Amino acid sequence: MIKNLGRLAALLASTLAVLGSAHAATSAEVLAASKPAEWRAIDPRTTLVMTLANGGEVLIELAPQFAPNTTQNILTLTKQGFFNGLVILRVQDNYVTQWGDPAAGSPGARAQGGLAATLAPEWTRPRKGLAFSELKDGDVYAPEVGISHGMPAARNKREAWLTHCYGMVGVGRDAAPESGNGSELYVVIGHSPRHLDRNITLAGRVIMGMDQLSALPRGTGALGFYQGAEPRLGISSVRISAQLPNGGPAARLEALREDSKSFAALTDARRNRTDDWTKVKAGKIEICNVPLPVRVKP
Amino acid sequence: MIKNLGRLAALLASTLAVLGSAHAATSAEVLAASKPAEWRAIDPRTTLVMTLANGGEVLIELAPQFAPNTTQNILTLTKQGFFNGLVILRVQDNYVTQWGDPAAGSPGARAQGGLAATLAPEWTRPRKGLAFSELKDGDVYAPEVGISHGMPAARNKREAWLTHCYGMVGVGRDAAPESGNGSELYVVIGHSPRHLDRNITLAGRVIMGMDQLSALPRGTGALGFYQGAEPRLGISSVRISAQLPNGGPAARLEALREDSKSFAALTDARRNRTDDWTKVKAGKIEICNVPLPVRVKP
Repeated sequence: MIKNLGRLAALLASTLAVLGSAHAATSAEVLAASKPAEWRAIDPRTTLVMTLANGGEVLIELAPQFAPNTTQNILTLTKQGFFNGLVILRVQDNYVTQWGDPAAGSPGARAQGGLAATLAPEWTRPRKGLAFSELKDGDVYAPEVGISHGMPAARNKREAWLTHCYGMVGVGRDAAPESGNGSELYVVIGHSPRHLDRNITLAGRVIMGMDQLSALPRGTGALGFYQGAEPRLGISSVRISAQLPNGGPAARLEALREDSKSFAALTDARRNRTDDWTKVKAGKIEICNVPLPVRVKP
Repeated sequence: MIKNLGRLAALLASTLAVLGSAHAATSAEVLAASKPAEWRAIDPRTTLVMTLANGGEVLIELAPQFAPNTTQNILTLTKQGFFNGLVILRVQDNYVTQWGDPAAGSPGARAQGGLAATLAPEWTRPRKGLAFSELKDGDVYAPEVGISHGMPAARNKREAWLTHCYGMVGVGRDAAPESGNGSELYVVIGHSPRHLDRNITLAGRVIMGMDQLSALPRGTGALGFYQGAEPRLGISSVRISAQLPNGGPAARLEALREDSKSFAALTDARRNRTDDWTKVKAGKIEICNVPLPVRVKP
């Protein structure tokens, strides 16, 4: 039905401004002007490389500052090859994609790979001692929000926690708080379900390949679980990036530091867009709309 | 890799509580207890039925209370069969799916179906005279938010406008405010890009079949436009539901009225979940997380 393929180039050019973008001109200018010292390395020792049966690759940066024990469990399971050959179990529209062992019976009801079936929840951590770049724009769910160690977070006077923004990875559990041990994981693929904050351990963030998990067919069972003959996409392997040649893909990436001037400028460019397209500036930005740039090292 | 298919049923049952859901028990109880008079009919005269080339069906309720002229334009184009045979042009992860005429050159740069190429923007409307069920939970972007005629909305002292929540449908435009005439449309498929509010005409909401537009492969061109040999999903037809036999699928649906007691109870059930799984109640709800139930008439 494409009447004139040659006009697509014109279409692309003329609609570059349409709707704005995560990489609108002004944001791009900020990033282009950033200095090398404003970027931090991604740690390959705490970054997972998930390879899907369709060849897709997903990189997940873990969050040891928020969930040290869960991070350790996930790393142990990964070293043991626990995730290799498991499947995507659930894709619920505007909610989560979840993966694990379909034979496990429940997210954390049994010991896996020598680890206990249960793990004390890491829903919050002490506020004290945590680097936190506060966002002054307010929030519906938490007294304070900001970015910490590259991830969206919140805090009150005593505690801090990661927030359920798009791309955040959490630990499935049953009703018992300690029932998630990291052997079943999910990622947020829709509008941020912030009511889950402080109810479940968030353990990381997808930093590359998010579309490999967000564009999957939705499951038709309850809560988006695949059922019957619905094909479950396989997970060929999950590996720790550091154990791959040359430190794996994570060793080639870096993230813009949230305490850098360029990060502040980028956030402000999103609050108040100066492109031709934008007529009414938002003036504010919500925590889950803050861009968290990750790039291949130049 | 499924080790034991028979255990999937147990898995499903045991994980029903995992992560909560848009249809958690308490919400389900509220809906089950709702009264017939608390539901409003969906108007088939202003609801579009989009049939995709893969057989998928999407229902879009238009918003004449917010965008009367755009609604009229879209209905006129639909009656003329304008959308039949067009394609999905763009799928940008965590942002939008957009459709229209790939030969058009830009979203609104030329007259279509006897309509002018341009249309005055309907980004806001007067606050006065608009039914509005206010949400008292606050908002980062607007002074007041709430639900109006079944859709998420915001207002200040003078004006009201629809908000860019998941599933909201808007009108692509170029840099000029009047350059969108309704011949190219998009739907939000990720975290709500609220910075677009009041910059573009929102014209409706997907009330059924959202997963048909959210799970599509992401385009690899700039801004998620499909490029080169990437297949573009075709649109077999877009029709007005009222023009189909028996009023079409919209005539069989109804929506929970936002001014009903059950709607208030449902919203509160989401603010403060009482299920076994939830340990820390959110206490508040953000506008784009408010459930807007649509069901087949009992």
